[in-house]
Amino acid sequence: MTSGTRFLLAARQCEIAELEQLARTSALVGVIGRFVHALQRERGMANIFLSSRGARFASQRTQQVADGAAAEAEVRAAFDGLDTEDAHARNGSRLFSRVALVLHALDGLPRLRERIAAQALRAGEATAAYDKLVAALLAVVFEAADAATDPEISRALVALFNFMQGKEFAGQERAFGARAFAAGTIDAAGQEHWRHLVAAQEGCLQVFTDFSDAEVLQAERAAQDPEALAQLERLRRLGFGTRGALDAELSDAWYAQCTRRIDGMRALEDLLAARLRGLCERRIAQARTELRDQRTMLEAFAAQARAADPATLAAYGPHLERSVLALVQEQARRLQAMGDELDEVRASLNERKVVERAKGLLMAHRHLSEEDAYKALRQMAMNQNRRIVDVAQAVLSLAEVLPGG
Amino acid sequence: MTSGTRFLLAARQCEIAELEQLARTSALVGVIGRFVHALQRERGMANIFLSSRGARFASQRTQQVADGAAAEAEVRAAFDGLDTEDAHARNGSRLFSRVALVLHALDGLPRLRERIAAQALRAGEATAAYDKLVAALLAVVFEAADAATDPEISRALVALFNFMQGKEFAGQERAFGARAFAAGTIDAAGQEHWRHLVAAQEGCLQVFTDFSDAEVLQAERAAQDPEALAQLERLRRLGFGTRGALDAELSDAWYAQCTRRIDGMRALEDLLAARLRGLCERRIAQARTELRDQRTMLEAFAAQARAADPATLAAYGPHLERSVLALVQEQARRLQAMGDELDEVRASLNERKVVERAKGLLMAHRHLSEEDAYKALRQMAMNQNRRIVDVAQAVLSLAEVLPGG
Repeated sequence: MTSGTRFLLAARQCEIAELEQLARTSALVGVIGRFVHALQRERGMANIFLSSRGARFASQRTQQVADGAAAEAEVRAAFDGLDTEDAHARNGSRLFSRVALVLHALDGLPRLRERIAAQALRAGEATAAYDKLVAALLAVVFEAADAATDPEISRALVALFNFMQGKEFAGQERAFGARAFAAGTIDAAGQEHWRHLVAAQEGCLQVFTDFSDAEVLQAERAAQDPEALAQLERLRRLGFGTRGALDAELSDAWYAQCTRRIDGMRALEDLLAARLRGLCERRIAQARTELRDQRTMLEAFAAQARAADPATLAAYGPHLERSVLALVQEQARRLQAMGDELDEVRASLNERKVVERAKGLLMAHRHLSEEDAYKALRQMAMNQNRRIVDVAQAVLSLAEVLPGG
Repeated sequence: MTSGTRFLLAARQCEIAELEQLARTSALVGVIGRFVHALQRERGMANIFLSSRGARFASQRTQQVADGAAAEAEVRAAFDGLDTEDAHARNGSRLFSRVALVLHALDGLPRLRERIAAQALRAGEATAAYDKLVAALLAVVFEAADAATDPEISRALVALFNFMQGKEFAGQERAFGARAFAAGTIDAAGQEHWRHLVAAQEGCLQVFTDFSDAEVLQAERAAQDPEALAQLERLRRLGFGTRGALDAELSDAWYAQCTRRIDGMRALEDLLAARLRGLCERRIAQARTELRDQRTMLEAFAAQARAADPATLAAYGPHLERSVLALVQEQARRLQAMGDELDEVRASLNERKVVERAKGLLMAHRHLSEEDAYKALRQMAMNQNRRIVDVAQAVLSLAEVLPGG
C-alpha cells in the first residue's frame, strides 16, 4: 500500500471516529432533554406554589422533585460516562467546561429546593435559578451541535437544539404566566416580558422548521391540538392582552393548558432525539462499509500490481494509478462538498453566537440585564426593519471603532 | 475531587492536546514552505527552458531539480510522521485526504521532469502541472489553519497561509513573465492574465498585513528593497504595459528580479514559521502552568475541606464552593471569549471558502476554467463596485433559487 492510500484510509477512519463521537453526544442530548423537561415542570409548580404563598401545588411540587431525581441521576451518569481521559475529544475543552458548569449548578439544586419549600425566596428568584440551570444544560446541547462535522447530523442537531430552546421559552412562559395569574396582577413590564417570551419561542421554532424535513414537520403538526392552541391564545389574551388585574382562578387552567402543549413538545423532542440516534448509526454503518470497500479495492489494485509481469504492469500500471487517483480525488471532493454544506448549516449557529456576543457587549457597557440587552436588540431591529442578527452585527462593528467601546 | 472539577481539568487537558496538535501541523507548514519554494524556482526555470527551446537555463534547471530533492524528502518524512493511527486528530479526515492528494501528485513529478527535459510538452502545460502540485501543498496549509482552535495561533496561520498563497502568485507571475519575455511576444489575453496575477498577489498580501502585528510588518518592510521593487514595476510595464513584441533579452533580468523578491519573501516566510512554532510552544507552556496551578488549588480546597472540623466546614464550605465555582465560570468565560475571537479570525478563511465555492459553481455550470471563473467574479465585483466575496455570495444565493442552478 502506498503512503497515499494509507492517508486515504486514515481520512476515512477519522470520519468514522468523528461520527462515533457525535453518536455519543447525541445520546447525551436525549438524556438532557428528559431532565430539562422535569426541571421545567418543577419550575412551573414552584412559581404557583410561591406566588400562592404555599396554597397551591404543594404536594404536586414535592412529587415532581421526587420524579425528577431519576432524570438527574441519568444526566450525571451520562456525564460520568464521557471519556474525560480522551484529551482529543472534538471540541472537548468547551464541552467539558460546560459540563463542569452544569455539575456546579446541580450541586446548588438541593439548597434551592429547601428554600422554595420554606418559602424563603420570591417566585422570581426561584425562576431565575431554574432558568440558569436549564440554560447551562442547553449550552451543553449547543456545544454538541457546534462540534458536529457531518452536515446531515449537524442539521438535525441544529433543529433539535432550537426546538429544545423554543420549548424552554415555552416553559418560561408557563412559569411566568402561572406566577402572574396566581398573583392576580400584571404591570406593563410584565406584559412586555410575556410578549418577549412568546416572540423568542416563535423565533426558535422557525429555525427548527427551517431545518426539519417533511416527516418531522408532519409529526409536529400531528402533535398539536388546534383547539388547545386556541385555548392557549385565549389565556394569553386574558394574561397580557389587557393591563391590570388578572383572574387568579385561571392560574391552574393556564398551567394545565401550557403543560399539555409542553408535554406534546416533549414527545416530539423524543422523536427528534431517536431520529438523531438513528441517523448517527446509519452514517457510521455507511462510512464503515465504504471504508471496507475502499480497502478491498486498494488491496486488489496492489495484488494486481504485484502479480503482473513487467509488460502487463507497464500497460496496467498507469491505469491502476489512475484508479487510485480517482478514489483520492473523489474523497477530497466529497469532503469539500460536506464542508461547504456544513458551513451553510452552521450559519444559523453563528448567528446565535453573534447575537450572544452583542448581548454581552450591551450588558457590559450599558449595564443591562441579559433580557434587557436582548430586548434592546429586538427593538432596534424592529425600528430599523432589519433582522436581529444584522443589528447585532452592527452593534459589534460599532464597538470596534468606538474608543473604549 | 468532585466530578465538576474533574471536567474542569479535563477541559484544560483537551486544550493542551489541541495546542500540541497545532504545534505539529505548524512544523509541517514550515517544511511545506521550503518545498514549495524549490518547486516555484523549478517551475520558473522550466518555463524559460521550454520557451527558449532548451537554449537557456538547462543546467540551472537540472541543478534545481537536484536541490529540490532534499525538500521533497523532508515533506514526505513529515507526512510519514503524522499519526494516521490517531483517528481523533482534529480535522483529520480533511487533512489526511489533502495529504493523500499531495502524495499522488508527487508520484507524477519524475515523469513531468522527464518530459520537460525531453521538451515533450509546452511551457504552459508544465506550468499548469507545477501550479496544481503547489496548490495541493498549500491546501494542506489551509486545512491546518482551518483546524486551529486557538485564536492567536489561528491568526498567525491565516497570515502565514495568505503570505504563502501571495508568494505563490508571485511565483506564477515570475514563470508567466519569464515565458512571455522568452517567447518575445504577448497577446491581450496574456496581458490580462499577468494583471490578474498581480492583483491576486496584492489581495493575499493585504490579508497577510491585516493579520500581522507591528513586528512582522516591520520585518516585511525591511526585507523589501525599494529599488528592486521599482525595477520590478518597470519590467512589468515593459511586459504587460504595452501590447506586442517583448524584448527577449529581458527574460533573464525579469527572472533574476522576481527571484530576488521571492527569495526575500521566502526569508520572511521562514521568520513567520519560526514565530508560529514559538507561539505554539509558549501557549502550550502557559496552558500547562495553568493546569498545574488549577490542580494545586483544587487539591488545596479538597484538603481544607477534609481537615476542617464540622463547624469550620460549615463556615468555610460555601466559601470553598464559591472559589471552585469562580474557577469553573472563569474557564467557561475564557473559552467563550476565545471562541468569539476565533470566529472573527476565521471569517477571512470563510470568505475564501465562499469564493472557492462560487468559482466551482461557475466552472461547473458555465464550463469555465478555474482562472476564468475567478476573473468573471472579479469583473462582476469591479462592475458593481463590491467586494469579490459579496459577489461570490450573490452568485451562490442566485444558484439556490434558479431552477437546475
